[in-house]
Amino acid sequence: MIKPTITAFEASPDEGEGLARDMRVRWALEEVGQPYDVRLVSFEAMKQPAHLRLQPFGQIPTYEEGTLTLFESGAIVLHLAETHAGLLPRDVNARRRAITWMFAALSTVEPPIVELEAASLLEGDKPWHRDRLPMMEERILARLRALSHRLGDAEWLEGEFTAGDLMMVMVLRRAEGTGLIEQFPNLVAYKARGEARPAYARAYASQAAVFSALKKNLP
Amino acid sequence: MIKPTITAFEASPDEGEGLARDMRVRWALEEVGQPYDVRLVSFEAMKQPAHLRLQPFGQIPTYEEGTLTLFESGAIVLHLAETHAGLLPRDVNARRRAITWMFAALSTVEPPIVELEAASLLEGDKPWHRDRLPMMEERILARLRALSHRLGDAEWLEGEFTAGDLMMVMVLRRAEGTGLIEQFPNLVAYKARGEARPAYARAYASQAAVFSALKKNLP
Repeated sequence: MIKPTITAFEASPDEGEGLARDMRVRWALEEVGQPYDVRLVSFEAMKQPAHLRLQPFGQIPTYEEGTLTLFESGAIVLHLAETHAGLLPRDVNARRRAITWMFAALSTVEPPIVELEAASLLEGDKPWHRDRLPMMEERILARLRALSHRLGDAEWLEGEFTAGDLMMVMVLRRAEGTGLIEQFPNLVAYKARGEARPAYARAYASQAAVFSALKKNLP
Repeated sequence: MIKPTITAFEASPDEGEGLARDMRVRWALEEVGQPYDVRLVSFEAMKQPAHLRLQPFGQIPTYEEGTLTLFESGAIVLHLAETHAGLLPRDVNARRRAITWMFAALSTVEPPIVELEAASLLEGDKPWHRDRLPMMEERILARLRALSHRLGDAEWLEGEFTAGDLMMVMVLRRAEGTGLIEQFPNLVAYKARGEARPAYARAYASQAAVFSALKKNLP
C-alpha cells in the first residue's frame, strides 16, 4: 500500500486527550502496522476549498492514499480493515458481524453521547439545561444498558478484537466525564482493555505529541 | 443466496410513510433483485429476549440469512451491496467512495435530523422548545448546505447510483416536514430522483401494505 496521509486538528479542542476522530484512524493504522503521514489543519483551513474538496463537511480526518481520497472515520477504518489483516475475522459471517458493530457504535451508541456533549458545551448556561439533562442521560444509558447486557463477561463483542471494538471503545471514550459508563463495570473494563492495547498507546502518543508541540510553541 | 428474512414494525409509528429503517433494507433488496421475507414485530416483542438476541438495542430491522444474523441498516445494506451487483461501482476506489457516503449519511447527516425529530416529539410542549429550534435547525442546515454544495448539479454523489445515495436519500426523507431540505433545490431534486426509482417504489409499496392491512383489522 502507498503510504497514506491523514489529516488531524492542528490545535485539537480536546487538548490532546485523543477524543477527536483522527484517533480512530490512527489506532486502526497502528493495529494493522501501516505507516502513515499526518497533515495538520487549522480550523480556518478546514473550511477552505482545498480541504472541502477532501471533506465536504469541513471536518477531520481525511485519508489520501495515491488516487484514493476518503473521509468519515468509519469508512476509513473499514477500508484499512479490509485491506490489511488484524481488524476483521477471517470467517465471512464473523466479518459481517464485526462491521455491524462498527455501524452500531457510530449510528446507535454515539449520537446520544455527542448530543449530550454539544448540549453541555453550547447550552450549559441556559435555564433549561438542568431540566433536559436526565432525559439526555437516559437516552445514553438505554444504549449502554443494552451494550453491557450483550457484552456480558466477554472480552470483545465478537470473540476476537475487531474494528467493531475499536469503534465502540472510541465512542465510549466520548462519554468520559459524564459518569454514565461507570454504572456498567463490564463496559469500564472493556474500554480499559481497548486502551491497554499497544497499538492504542502508540496512536494516543502520536496525537498527544501534536498538542504538546503546539503548547510549547505558544507565546 | 438463501432467501433472507428481515424484521419490520408490526405497527409502524410513521403509519406506513416509509421512514422506519426497514425501508432502507427493503429498497436495497429491491435494487439488487433479492427476494426476501418479512417478520413483523410488535413494540412489546422488540424488547423481549428472542428479539434482543438478534438486535441487542431492541430495534428493527434485523437480517437473517442462514447462519448469518445482522442488525443496523447500514451493515445490512453494505452486506447486500457487497454480495450482489447494483449498489456499488466496479472500480475499487469508487466502491470505497460510495461506502464513505453511507457513513456520511448515517454518522454526519442523520444525527442532527433525528435530534430535531426527537425534540419535536418529546419536548414540543416544553417552554424551551421554541428557543432551541433555530439552533437545532442550523445544525441540520450546515450539513445540508455542505451536501448541496458537493452534489452541485450532479445526478448522484459519485457518478452512478450507489448504496451511498440510497442511504443519503433515506436520511433526507427523515427531514421531511421540517421545511429545511426545501432551501436546497438540488437536494429536493436528488431526493425525488431516488424516490422515482422502480426499486424504491416496490419497497415503499411493501412497507405501506403492512400498515394498510393493520388499519383494516383495527376494530
